[in-house]
Amino acid sequence: MAQTGRQRILVLGGGFAGMFAAGELQRRLGTSADIELINEVNYFVFQPLLPEVAAAAISTRDAVAPLRQLLPGVKVRQAQIFDVDLDRRIVTIFQGVQRRYTEVAYDHLVIALGQSVDLSGFPGLADHALTIKTLSDAHKLRNHVIDRLEHADITALPEVKKELLTFTIVGGGFSGVETAGEMRDLITKSLKYYSNIDASEVRILVIEFADRILAELAPSLGEYARTFFERQGIEVMLETGVKEATGTQIETTKGDVIGTRTIVATIGNAPSALVQKMDLPQAHGRIKTDRKMRVENSANVWALGDAALIPLRDDPTERHHWAPPTAQFAVREARTLAQNIEAVFDGREPEDFVYQSKGAMASLGAGRGVAEVYGIRLSGRKAWLLWRMYYLSFVPGFATKIRIAANWILDAVLGRSIVQTGSGSPIGTRYVHYRKGDRIFETGNRADGFYIVVKGAVELTIPGRDGHEDSVQEIGAKGHFGDRVLLGEGLRTGTVRALEATEILVVGAEDFKRIVAAMPVLDDYFDQYFASVYHQSKPGVQI
Amino acid sequence: MAQTGRQRILVLGGGFAGMFAAGELQRRLGTSADIELINEVNYFVFQPLLPEVAAAAISTRDAVAPLRQLLPGVKVRQAQIFDVDLDRRIVTIFQGVQRRYTEVAYDHLVIALGQSVDLSGFPGLADHALTIKTLSDAHKLRNHVIDRLEHADITALPEVKKELLTFTIVGGGFSGVETAGEMRDLITKSLKYYSNIDASEVRILVIEFADRILAELAPSLGEYARTFFERQGIEVMLETGVKEATGTQIETTKGDVIGTRTIVATIGNAPSALVQKMDLPQAHGRIKTDRKMRVENSANVWALGDAALIPLRDDPTERHHWAPPTAQFAVREARTLAQNIEAVFDGREPEDFVYQSKGAMASLGAGRGVAEVYGIRLSGRKAWLLWRMYYLSFVPGFATKIRIAANWILDAVLGRSIVQTGSGSPIGTRYVHYRKGDRIFETGNRADGFYIVVKGAVELTIPGRDGHEDSVQEIGAKGHFGDRVLLGEGLRTGTVRALEATEILVVGAEDFKRIVAAMPVLDDYFDQYFASVYHQSKPGVQI
Repeated sequence: MAQTGRQRILVLGGGFAGMFAAGELQRRLGTSADIELINEVNYFVFQPLLPEVAAAAISTRDAVAPLRQLLPGVKVRQAQIFDVDLDRRIVTIFQGVQRRYTEVAYDHLVIALGQSVDLSGFPGLADHALTIKTLSDAHKLRNHVIDRLEHADITALPEVKKELLTFTIVGGGFSGVETAGEMRDLITKSLKYYSNIDASEVRILVIEFADRILAELAPSLGEYARTFFERQGIEVMLETGVKEATGTQIETTKGDVIGTRTIVATIGNAPSALVQKMDLPQAHGRIKTDRKMRVENSANVWALGDAALIPLRDDPTERHHWAPPTAQFAVREARTLAQNIEAVFDGREPEDFVYQSKGAMASLGAGRGVAEVYGIRLSGRKAWLLWRMYYLSFVPGFATKIRIAANWILDAVLGRSIVQTGSGSPIGTRYVHYRKGDRIFETGNRADGFYIVVKGAVELTIPGRDGHEDSVQEIGAKGHFGDRVLLGEGLRTGTVRALEATEILVVGAEDFKRIVAAMPVLDDYFDQYFASVYHQSKPGVQI
Repeated sequence: MAQTGRQRILVLGGGFAGMFAAGELQRRLGTSADIELINEVNYFVFQPLLPEVAAAAISTRDAVAPLRQLLPGVKVRQAQIFDVDLDRRIVTIFQGVQRRYTEVAYDHLVIALGQSVDLSGFPGLADHALTIKTLSDAHKLRNHVIDRLEHADITALPEVKKELLTFTIVGGGFSGVETAGEMRDLITKSLKYYSNIDASEVRILVIEFADRILAELAPSLGEYARTFFERQGIEVMLETGVKEATGTQIETTKGDVIGTRTIVATIGNAPSALVQKMDLPQAHGRIKTDRKMRVENSANVWALGDAALIPLRDDPTERHHWAPPTAQFAVREARTLAQNIEAVFDGREPEDFVYQSKGAMASLGAGRGVAEVYGIRLSGRKAWLLWRMYYLSFVPGFATKIRIAANWILDAVLGRSIVQTGSGSPIGTRYVHYRKGDRIFETGNRADGFYIVVKGAVELTIPGRDGHEDSVQEIGAKGHFGDRVLLGEGLRTGTVRALEATEILVVGAEDFKRIVAAMPVLDDYFDQYFASVYHQSKPGVQI
């Protein structure tokens, strides 16, 4: 039956799948339907370039394009999606500064929410690993690496310097390999400004659980990449997983303990929180659709991209019987999906999604790459040039193409910018994981926060004054330490070590002082605490 | 007496004064002395371009240059300066991730710490105004303005839309005027992407306490700027100060209350915290030096730039008898200071600092400016071109010059990028100021934090269910509300209004839940609190 009246098509998510779907829908149905896209940020991220942003080859804002510029005619709403009510055909969102609750109605819903990262299976990894999924991840990683170089250049402690100059990438897929290569470029090009760091002190590691890297490509290309990496000084550890991670170490499944203050995790894909709470049929963490990308048992709900499990044949059993979660497929899916919704509007039958991959490629940094296109394998500089040309042609938006090309030219001509634009002091709360024996802080460190033991136990040693013995105290779960931060003291007067694997909640000093000063229950508690433990009264907390 | 041995010269601060001083010192004394510069960030900020960063005309990293690249040979240390011990000739710093306490010795100390901002004289202004002193300020301002446009485009509330589209700049000096002009450019060039915003709805205001803007330039140029602004739709309110500010309003000294969700403060210069705690002779918030830039009564401590009060004649009495806090003077001061330290090393007498301003200029946005150079006055496009050329020639570092020029060209050719790269949910704690009668939150808003009353009083109204009367409750200082955030509820169930001028400490929801879950004293307190107030038990806090 042909639809009548102005239909509302709502696309959730502005990645490759959502952005291209909204654009195709606008092109085909813009005159007869209202197309709206809701996304948490107001820009489309060109994911394959994030490692280059992390390596400062491209400036933060240039790897992305504003959704409004890319999608003329489409209503773009920057908001946080709270829930989907499939019965009432309503999406509830929070928008604006006040995070006002708002309902958005739809006739057809297109789910393109991608995937998120879940590292909870690896103790300490979620607390300490950087990821490279969003623009802000890439920005943070760049600042993190430059910060490590700044610190390594001035530290007087050889062990700390070694940890600072060891960079670990977990996962040897496209994202991990490209991140390792780009990180090496950034460090190599920056070292001339750090006169106290010798190139031989830098260690870059890729840890991969499988027996090869770049498993999506032909074995010969994976082998080329591995050999090239080793020649460039990037170590590849195969058949190795992560057992535990802290702020200064990573322990592998093989039992090696590696001192490192940079861990980048490119593993652990998981459904987004919103998809998890939707009442839709799922498998392998993705929403099950039919071959037409309609969600099973729904007439007006569609899904595509990484969030969707789209069968490529009627009785899928093997992994390759479903569409893989790649940008290449997402863009093709978007086209078919728009055709299918148009078909429904016209009363025609939607069609199955059919597509065969044209190939894949990866940049290895240092102007080298690997590629497999229409069955032809390339490696080295040719593959790298192909990679750049392909992605430049693929980037949506003319202005963004020019900006990226300009970035590449300036980078080649002027060299890397080692500006660290990140923020300084930690604020808010964060969880920190320690292995048995780890030093949490020691006498003379700056008192930067208040520490609460969530799990495990620590030992606090306060040096005795005037010939008295050291005071040693064990603090278990629910206990706290570092409370002298409330006195406004600048330096730690004791040393704390983890007695077992321990999880700590750290509250930023300024935040904690403000809360204690404002809440009588805490102010009273610490008055008593200081009287009984230190035999001194706590002064009124100064903010 | 001529110095022997390798001297250590330590420069504190990497702005115009510190960066140029370190460079000059290295050039003159690099072979015989160790020059070291300590700064909180690893880059030099080209301050005059910050309004352009805020307006997205230049990307964040391109208005700055890495100190290490600009100062070959100088030891650059990125660290937080804690204190200066003038007797022991030692500067104490915190460096690295652990913020390790480190001592750095010096023979000569050069203080170039600039000035910071103090808005504490204006109730609410420090809580709610954005500033434009640092790179991160400019980055935040850009994201803030784009966020206001995004929100204004989708809100259904006319009053909120009006507040969102009113942009207020406090202060009509160089910084305020250039920020207003650039902000107008950004908004004008972006509006085509926001189909629900009409240009007539946008209001940009400059509030200036004096009876004219750009008081540093000739009256005719100030008048030109004001007339040009009014033609461009930028309102200028003269002889007007700030009485009080909140997140949605500003009250002027004339009694006007303006609804605005963007306040940029360019007023309130104050000495930096470190200068304040140093035991050095000060006046007008600056360190008193002699005409040779030596700090009074110190043989080996020097000061220059905005942090220093440098007399231009022997008996200074009027304001213009001291060197003004401008980049132009700072650069000249740096040169004389390096000569003077060299003179001390060679056993010669240092010289007085002598310099006469060559003039000043300001950009007004939209390709117009005002300038006064060697007594000649210019306005309009010629002044603007001169402004651009002068600053481009003034930017230190070849790579940075090219990057800025490339930014300007791309901006002219491709238009503005409205990418909002800022972060989303608030974390940590923040103070919020409300005027009497202000709504703090209302039923249906998202529960984004826990609220503690620091000063003042609020009224909480919870709508009665099933025909019951509304419950109304007054909460005074030290009281709290918004505690249902602990239940993990997504939406507010009551409305809170300020009964008087009120200061609130807001703790981010996620941070607060983590702290309560980890600290038994708070967990117990809220168990009892929920039992007595809501007659229901608090569930175990979920994180």
